[in-house]
Amino acid sequence: MAAAMLAARVRDRRLLLSHRPVPKVPPGWALVRVRLAGICNTDLEILRGYHGFRGILGHEFVGEVVRCGGASAARRRDEAQWLGRRVVGEINIACRGLGLRSLCEFCRRDTPTHCARRRVLGIVNHDGAFAEFLALPLVNLHGVPHDVPDECAVFTEPLAAACQILAQVRIERGAHVAVLGDGKLGQLIVRVLAAAGAAVTLFGRHREKLALAAGRGVSTIVLAQRAGGRRVKAACRFPYVVDATGAADGLALAIKLTEPRGTLVLKSTFHGAARVETWPMVVNEMTVVGSRCGPFERALALLRAGQVDPLPLISRVFPLDEAADAIREARASGVLKVLLKP
Amino acid sequence: MAAAMLAARVRDRRLLLSHRPVPKVPPGWALVRVRLAGICNTDLEILRGYHGFRGILGHEFVGEVVRCGGASAARRRDEAQWLGRRVVGEINIACRGLGLRSLCEFCRRDTPTHCARRRVLGIVNHDGAFAEFLALPLVNLHGVPHDVPDECAVFTEPLAAACQILAQVRIERGAHVAVLGDGKLGQLIVRVLAAAGAAVTLFGRHREKLALAAGRGVSTIVLAQRAGGRRVKAACRFPYVVDATGAADGLALAIKLTEPRGTLVLKSTFHGAARVETWPMVVNEMTVVGSRCGPFERALALLRAGQVDPLPLISRVFPLDEAADAIREARASGVLKVLLKP
Repeated sequence: MAAAMLAARVRDRRLLLSHRPVPKVPPGWALVRVRLAGICNTDLEILRGYHGFRGILGHEFVGEVVRCGGASAARRRDEAQWLGRRVVGEINIACRGLGLRSLCEFCRRDTPTHCARRRVLGIVNHDGAFAEFLALPLVNLHGVPHDVPDECAVFTEPLAAACQILAQVRIERGAHVAVLGDGKLGQLIVRVLAAAGAAVTLFGRHREKLALAAGRGVSTIVLAQRAGGRRVKAACRFPYVVDATGAADGLALAIKLTEPRGTLVLKSTFHGAARVETWPMVVNEMTVVGSRCGPFERALALLRAGQVDPLPLISRVFPLDEAADAIREARASGVLKVLLKP
Repeated sequence: MAAAMLAARVRDRRLLLSHRPVPKVPPGWALVRVRLAGICNTDLEILRGYHGFRGILGHEFVGEVVRCGGASAARRRDEAQWLGRRVVGEINIACRGLGLRSLCEFCRRDTPTHCARRRVLGIVNHDGAFAEFLALPLVNLHGVPHDVPDECAVFTEPLAAACQILAQVRIERGAHVAVLGDGKLGQLIVRVLAAAGAAVTLFGRHREKLALAAGRGVSTIVLAQRAGGRRVKAACRFPYVVDATGAADGLALAIKLTEPRGTLVLKSTFHGAARVETWPMVVNEMTVVGSRCGPFERALALLRAGQVDPLPLISRVFPLDEAADAIREARASGVLKVLLKP
């Protein structure tokens, strides 16, 4: 294997394409050859300064294990199981993955996604997936079933994030849920919620994107580009609202759409601050739930059963050496998922 | 009884003292002679434009039933029970209190505090307690036990609001809770939480106010006046945080103090918008719970058992005709509860 690889890294809010050393794999880790990587809104926010990340960008991927670190007999058995397998990977590298014997309080509570010492693939202190290879602990990996193609498997990470909503909030079958944002994540969320039997209304600004989601338990409402949702009547309120706009003005509309004692799930992470009138949250005794990474098993099961079909969400596939063009494309209005192929 | 009464009403963000007609009491309502009324932060916010309220201000009171409306025999029995009794009153006038036969969806769900048609004493479309008399539906009234003096009973409404936190969020005995804001409501909240066995830390800017709360399961931390809490270390985080600052910058500090998967209770209602970075709510998967009016029974029980003693929180009592001075006093730094005596 070559000692260098092509990679797209962030520095000073710019994406630089260059050759970097192939990552080293310590014991208990795998070297994964990236087959396909996805561009997420968080990647675009990182390029605007979010998290101040420096390194190789990208956290959505499907790949193939090409090497395992370590030497003991037990580890070799583990490796034999992984070598050559197609995998997706959880992005939070927690105490166990870091090989730390004394766990932090969050790992002790079995919430490694909140590990106090965590590194996060392509987001916090760990090189990501916009490269020919990446390194992750074996405990982070999930094998991809043979009947789930790469183009679907690459959606596992954001789909798991969509599934996290149902892991955190009990939404009864038939319950009315408003999802704000017709982008990549919003599209996955409406599919997950509809598959769980919710009556979903997707609010968005792009007729073509809304059309992709319409049907199968999802109705759609077009928000006027400039009205910022002000035209949405106060009478139109929901017991469950999900903000997946990825934008600062999403929260204000989400608050307006949530009925008293209702639940608002926050999925938007963006760089900077939002101006929010918080008194309606108090007066209406709303519950706001922040929601991030989710269960990969559930996401893979939905993909395998065909309950969520992400293929229509792919706008374009770029070769890795055109990563800068891919990012520009991903930022354009009307575009959904842009993939990178190393 | 005189046909006119002294009252302090809001108009164009100003407090005007004048004589107004004594309220009429429809069937099922009581005319209450106000014995003592309390000035709440919400009153000060209303005078800054919050809710655009016009009318007689005030929603915290203890009074005495002097007349009941209505005529039927059933009603007369009800009246006999109330006439002459010392009472406190819930402030939300919902479908039942309004005598509406078809209930709104929130009253049907038995959440009358969220009644879609509600009026709110001294806050929304209904004259309040800074007057010689007020009118409320009998269903809103709670008799005050004879061993609870007026000076304690007048705290029932804000104390119930403090108790609402425990009605909404399960806080285990011994759990660490941060309360932000050493003002009137924060003081009641720390007492309620400490009485429930929580390990409470009160954050505030006034040494004298913090000193009032210290001890009995409450420790205190002084926030630097200008630092806006920036000096509070990130390492100092709590599973439960209550924002009772009543100020726009409270939420940002509250978010900073909440540990991953922690719960932040919002008690602050203020006029205008806050600038908030929301991504930590998402990344840390926080739950934010808006909390407003609470159970009067619980508040009265705490007062009666002496588990909460609000008397040290009384800064000064003004006669009603000095309401404007009382408001000025309530706004001053270092002042806690200011009462009005009609």
